[in-house]
Amino acid sequence: MNIGIDMMGGDFAPLEAVKGIKLLLEGKVERDKGQGKDNNDNNDNNYNHYNNYNLTLFGDQPQIESLLKEHGIDTTNIKIVGTSQVIDMHEHPTKALKEKQDSSIAVGFGYLTKGMVDAFISAGNTGAMMVGSLFSIKAIEGIHRPTIGAYMPRENGKLGWLIDAGINSDCKPENLVQFAMLGSIFAEQILGIENPLVGLINIGEEEGKGNLLSQAAYPLLKEYQNIQFIGNIEGRDVFLDKADVMVCDGFTGNIILKLAESIHGLVQRRNIHDEFFDMFEFEQYGGVPVLGVNKPVIIGHGISHAKAFKNMISMAEKMVERDVVGIIKSKL
Amino acid sequence: MNIGIDMMGGDFAPLEAVKGIKLLLEGKVERDKGQGKDNNDNNDNNYNHYNNYNLTLFGDQPQIESLLKEHGIDTTNIKIVGTSQVIDMHEHPTKALKEKQDSSIAVGFGYLTKGMVDAFISAGNTGAMMVGSLFSIKAIEGIHRPTIGAYMPRENGKLGWLIDAGINSDCKPENLVQFAMLGSIFAEQILGIENPLVGLINIGEEEGKGNLLSQAAYPLLKEYQNIQFIGNIEGRDVFLDKADVMVCDGFTGNIILKLAESIHGLVQRRNIHDEFFDMFEFEQYGGVPVLGVNKPVIIGHGISHAKAFKNMISMAEKMVERDVVGIIKSKL
Repeated sequence: MNIGIDMMGGDFAPLEAVKGIKLLLEGKVERDKGQGKDNNDNNDNNYNHYNNYNLTLFGDQPQIESLLKEHGIDTTNIKIVGTSQVIDMHEHPTKALKEKQDSSIAVGFGYLTKGMVDAFISAGNTGAMMVGSLFSIKAIEGIHRPTIGAYMPRENGKLGWLIDAGINSDCKPENLVQFAMLGSIFAEQILGIENPLVGLINIGEEEGKGNLLSQAAYPLLKEYQNIQFIGNIEGRDVFLDKADVMVCDGFTGNIILKLAESIHGLVQRRNIHDEFFDMFEFEQYGGVPVLGVNKPVIIGHGISHAKAFKNMISMAEKMVERDVVGIIKSKL
Repeated sequence: MNIGIDMMGGDFAPLEAVKGIKLLLEGKVERDKGQGKDNNDNNDNNYNHYNNYNLTLFGDQPQIESLLKEHGIDTTNIKIVGTSQVIDMHEHPTKALKEKQDSSIAVGFGYLTKGMVDAFISAGNTGAMMVGSLFSIKAIEGIHRPTIGAYMPRENGKLGWLIDAGINSDCKPENLVQFAMLGSIFAEQILGIENPLVGLINIGEEEGKGNLLSQAAYPLLKEYQNIQFIGNIEGRDVFLDKADVMVCDGFTGNIILKLAESIHGLVQRRNIHDEFFDMFEFEQYGGVPVLGVNKPVIIGHGISHAKAFKNMISMAEKMVERDVVGIIKSKL
């Protein structure tokens, strides 16, 4: 397995990316030591997996090299691909990708397309990561609108999955059905929720309620065999454990996500310390995958720190190991 | 002034309505006493206002009479109109209004249409109140979509106004402009916010961001002279003091409202006591007016208690005194 990492993306690049790699590799070494001691043959897979494990880092080579050294990181399994350009957070995605062909994001997608890495991660410009995915590895045949979801804190302490979280503002009913399928696979394979319950975000409980989109999507979701559809859920249900996968258009989803993201600040400024409201610190979650494209791509929060980078890399590994893309294809 | 009240609407009817009337009248008597002592001529208006003040109560006459007596309410300014039917919370609005012509809601709207009351209040079936408004007193000429807004708690301790909060799920750009106008007048006249700032709820800050609706509404709002438009606001801005009036379609608004409503329960179940989060107890706000119809109509929360009824009656008074309907007409 070879995971590609954009080292120049995010507000604290490349330092926090390097620290994330350190965290990740230390965890792996610890696990391997444990396995060696147990001499447990069942773990061979994992052990070999680490031996076959490679990271490919895209970015400013001298800077990355010196940071790796400074943090005492064993570079046996690490390859650096030097790139000379950086796409900034607020650049126009299409224009930037076209003009900055030696940027860490553009070169990373080149490696991904050619199969020289198995997954690609960045905490950089979200738009450039979306456009890069759509133009290089492309949407899976049959997927109309690749999408991004978002974690949703829930009162039961387990995360739910909101999808679409802001990529597709205007949707057709069929898009919502695909979001439901993509979200269910993600919830099952990555969040570890068996037979995830899917709710349609709406403004009433009964079938027939809602706007034209949700009215039309409801019967399609009800008929669709690949998901466990429980019907409509309302705004008041988002933070409860009613549905594991919450489906909506990207406009609605983005409003919900940003509203949810604002709650942590409100709680902190009121000096409230509470386990449940700690879940609203979204930076801790690392990144989210672009679902519906042909290879695993993970996009991180701009202000990602070491732990977030570590989590993103782990998610990319899981996406590869579980063959999430293959599972999606099998449902089409 | 004559305010009509549906005594049979809400989960605790007619008891809580009676208790609300008691609270209201006690407040008025206190004010009048104070004014007598001060012998302040400037307050003559208010004093006379109470003398010319009447309440018309629609509902089960014997039950209301006995409750008024039981609560020691002075009935000098109160008239009861006996009605024999009740529209339940979950009845189909149009059907119920047609079939239950002697219901408190139907009779109340009859009085309002004929000018026998100046405003009408109910904590009953919201749909029936909307349909009743549209079919009896009707939309103001030039208003395409009458609407209902919702209070939004804000970190600065002052309430904002979200509009539409769930009546018009699918909107045209011009509808949002009228919501902005209606919301601004409400914020100015009833919430007492001078030159209220209007924000368009969207998924990005810059003009051009958003779904087709918000992209088309932005330039119309920018051009419109009757409001103070500040541009887009995002989900994260809803609970801040960025905009006083937050404009969106009723689908988005209803999701935001119900999500906001759910926060109080979450906070309570975590045993958190906090002034700001107390603002999320929406029942305290009484009711909201149907904006854009020809007379003041106030719809209350189903679980309204005495204080909510008192607040609804006070709001109806303000709507009449300030001639909110006349101000709306002047902007068209």
